[in-house]
Amino acid sequence: MEVFDAAELWSRERIAETQLTRLKATLAQSRKCSFYRERLDEAGIGPDSIRSLDDLRRIPFTTKQDLRSQYPTGLLCVPPSEIVRMHCSSGTTGTPVAICHTQNDINAWADLMARCMHMVGVRREDVFQNMSGYGLFTGGLGIHFGAERLGCMTIPAGPGNSRRQIKLAKDFRTTVAHILPSYALILGEHLRNMGEDPRDFPLRIALVGAEPYTEEFRKRIEELFDMKAYNSYGLSEMNGPGVGFECLEQNGLHIWEDAYIPEIVDPDTGEPVPDGEVGELVMTSLCRQGMPILRYRTRDLTRFLPGPCVCGRAHRRMDRILGRADDMFIIKGVNVYPMQIEQVIMTFKEVGQSYLILLENDGIGDVMRVQVEIRDEYFVEDMRALQSLQKVIAQRLRDEILVTPRVELVESNSLPRTEGKAVRVQDLRAKK
Amino acid sequence: MEVFDAAELWSRERIAETQLTRLKATLAQSRKCSFYRERLDEAGIGPDSIRSLDDLRRIPFTTKQDLRSQYPTGLLCVPPSEIVRMHCSSGTTGTPVAICHTQNDINAWADLMARCMHMVGVRREDVFQNMSGYGLFTGGLGIHFGAERLGCMTIPAGPGNSRRQIKLAKDFRTTVAHILPSYALILGEHLRNMGEDPRDFPLRIALVGAEPYTEEFRKRIEELFDMKAYNSYGLSEMNGPGVGFECLEQNGLHIWEDAYIPEIVDPDTGEPVPDGEVGELVMTSLCRQGMPILRYRTRDLTRFLPGPCVCGRAHRRMDRILGRADDMFIIKGVNVYPMQIEQVIMTFKEVGQSYLILLENDGIGDVMRVQVEIRDEYFVEDMRALQSLQKVIAQRLRDEILVTPRVELVESNSLPRTEGKAVRVQDLRAKK
Repeated sequence: MEVFDAAELWSRERIAETQLTRLKATLAQSRKCSFYRERLDEAGIGPDSIRSLDDLRRIPFTTKQDLRSQYPTGLLCVPPSEIVRMHCSSGTTGTPVAICHTQNDINAWADLMARCMHMVGVRREDVFQNMSGYGLFTGGLGIHFGAERLGCMTIPAGPGNSRRQIKLAKDFRTTVAHILPSYALILGEHLRNMGEDPRDFPLRIALVGAEPYTEEFRKRIEELFDMKAYNSYGLSEMNGPGVGFECLEQNGLHIWEDAYIPEIVDPDTGEPVPDGEVGELVMTSLCRQGMPILRYRTRDLTRFLPGPCVCGRAHRRMDRILGRADDMFIIKGVNVYPMQIEQVIMTFKEVGQSYLILLENDGIGDVMRVQVEIRDEYFVEDMRALQSLQKVIAQRLRDEILVTPRVELVESNSLPRTEGKAVRVQDLRAKK
Repeated sequence: MEVFDAAELWSRERIAETQLTRLKATLAQSRKCSFYRERLDEAGIGPDSIRSLDDLRRIPFTTKQDLRSQYPTGLLCVPPSEIVRMHCSSGTTGTPVAICHTQNDINAWADLMARCMHMVGVRREDVFQNMSGYGLFTGGLGIHFGAERLGCMTIPAGPGNSRRQIKLAKDFRTTVAHILPSYALILGEHLRNMGEDPRDFPLRIALVGAEPYTEEFRKRIEELFDMKAYNSYGLSEMNGPGVGFECLEQNGLHIWEDAYIPEIVDPDTGEPVPDGEVGELVMTSLCRQGMPILRYRTRDLTRFLPGPCVCGRAHRRMDRILGRADDMFIIKGVNVYPMQIEQVIMTFKEVGQSYLILLENDGIGDVMRVQVEIRDEYFVEDMRALQSLQKVIAQRLRDEILVTPRVELVESNSLPRTEGKAVRVQDLRAKK
């Protein structure tokens, strides 16, 4: 197996050994800001309290609210002059979260990202088109630096503008793209409208992340372009992209455990759940100097995939993100994740490219409507067939989420399209 | 004098010696693509033809049309796998121009940009907010890499969104910004509307480029924020920003002659003009491996400033860009550059922040209207005073451009604002 760096092939023992060493160093580093020093002191954790990886659980969680309370630079653990980059969330819904990086942090991040790309076969001979927004959002600069580190010809195309994306990809024979799954479909449609077959497009690998999508959706975009799509996981609190990535097996995302300690806990109790059970991902950075973060509650729901990966890498795998604790909506007293609905409807061959969940109140109670685009070739069938399909989808959804939605079949391309993150849920119920 | 690298202080002799060595190497490198090999052979220039810098003039010019004809990779002088970055123009008005960089090219570019910023006093302790668009446009990534190279805390804010720009700058105590001059005024207005004095803003240095503006305009934004504004010159064909930059003297832009050979030629004949005379800037890259470019006709009009700079650097200075050969418009048979008009009107204390040149045809002939914003405190004066001001401005414009325009005084903030490059000329004449 050709690997980007030695750590990619470390054994479990070597990983665990390194984690312990780096966790101790990270704890020492984190004490350089008063927030962590006070919090660790309160928890009775001194510089020498961590003797084994099990001691990690004695460290208090860090929440998004904690990060907000320390905005802008409360969590800085180096002199400000050591910082070379700041990324932050938009802060449109409150105080932003800002993460500051030293040059070493930026280099380590680029190395991890390059390792992800190398793992799925991206090489310096590839032409890489980054269709992500740049600026404060980490998906742009994060993957850009990784691709340049790997030595790919990197085209900083930015998001949207399908006509230009297609022109650039054709002119430079782009083989690898960083793209939103929903945007991959839009690009494919665009090519077909131009009378071209997306399978003739030079793309062979897509790096996809940032928005949740199902296995069925992945197969669809893979077939559309005759390419492989690999899932990427990252969050700005842990740098951005480069935290977890699928290998060629496409069976779970390896989390780089030389750089992070992942845990999965019950979102209510904070207690660890057994391997294979769904819970909230909790992450500790191990290599960050500027702003180390301990046991961060990501709000992302996933599970560890038990057992070793066929690829031979010992870095543990997590399942794709199964939802966000915050994306969950409650209807008729039941917790529902949009991903559950997508997983059901995308198993139907008649279903097209888009769907929309509408939450309404009809005066008596809450109603969930699910609008589903149907492919042209099926939409022309007789009324009876469509009504029957509608009924079957509603039943299957009921089996999954325990609530019966009103399913509406609509023509393909009739639901609103966005070039950014797809909007899957519209909650039109009056706020109480 | 504290300098970023030794080349900053090289003597004329050392510069000339290095230029000759690097020109020879660049010629050899450029022959690796068939375009230059054939063109040089046609001109009778072999591998050993360049004996002195004077021989440069024997090399044929390269035009934008040449670059377009070689799009996308005709000018590549290294194997494609050596390329790590591509930047290109938008191509909205025709075939784009694409420039491909090796890792060495990117590093050398970042070093030059860091040298520019260091020259005007930017240090690693500074917080740098990049208000430029990222992506394919070189102003974003180019200055970003330079700022990180210098070690500044770099905030990749991107363009627009004044509310967020202000919040970031206040929260992180931004001391240095890369900003369009017209946008600096918009930010200042925004702060005033918030009831704040822009002079209390932490900004101490602005790097400004990308759009032409006058000395009067510079003084205005410097006073507005109580800061220093330094002019930057660059073009994507020569990497992007980092080609020329003002020193603390603010008296012309030093062109880094260890990395480029600048010439100024008569735009019609292509013959060199004497120092001090205005002509078209022609540039040869000396350090670029991926795509060296020989004697590029920039279409930018400027002049060499004669004599040495007080700062002691021997790198020759060019005047700020006095216009683009392509921005010129013809009215009543006279060649006019928008910059000439700005230079006149901005000398009037009554004139506000914006102006607009309208070219129309009234059925008899071409008419030039100049709409000029007047500051609130003067707009309330009596009609006679305003009419008199209008007349004086028209006369002064006539003296400068030899055509009498219709001057219209308008209220402040009444002309359209853009957050990008200011639009100064609207040509409403029917195309023939």
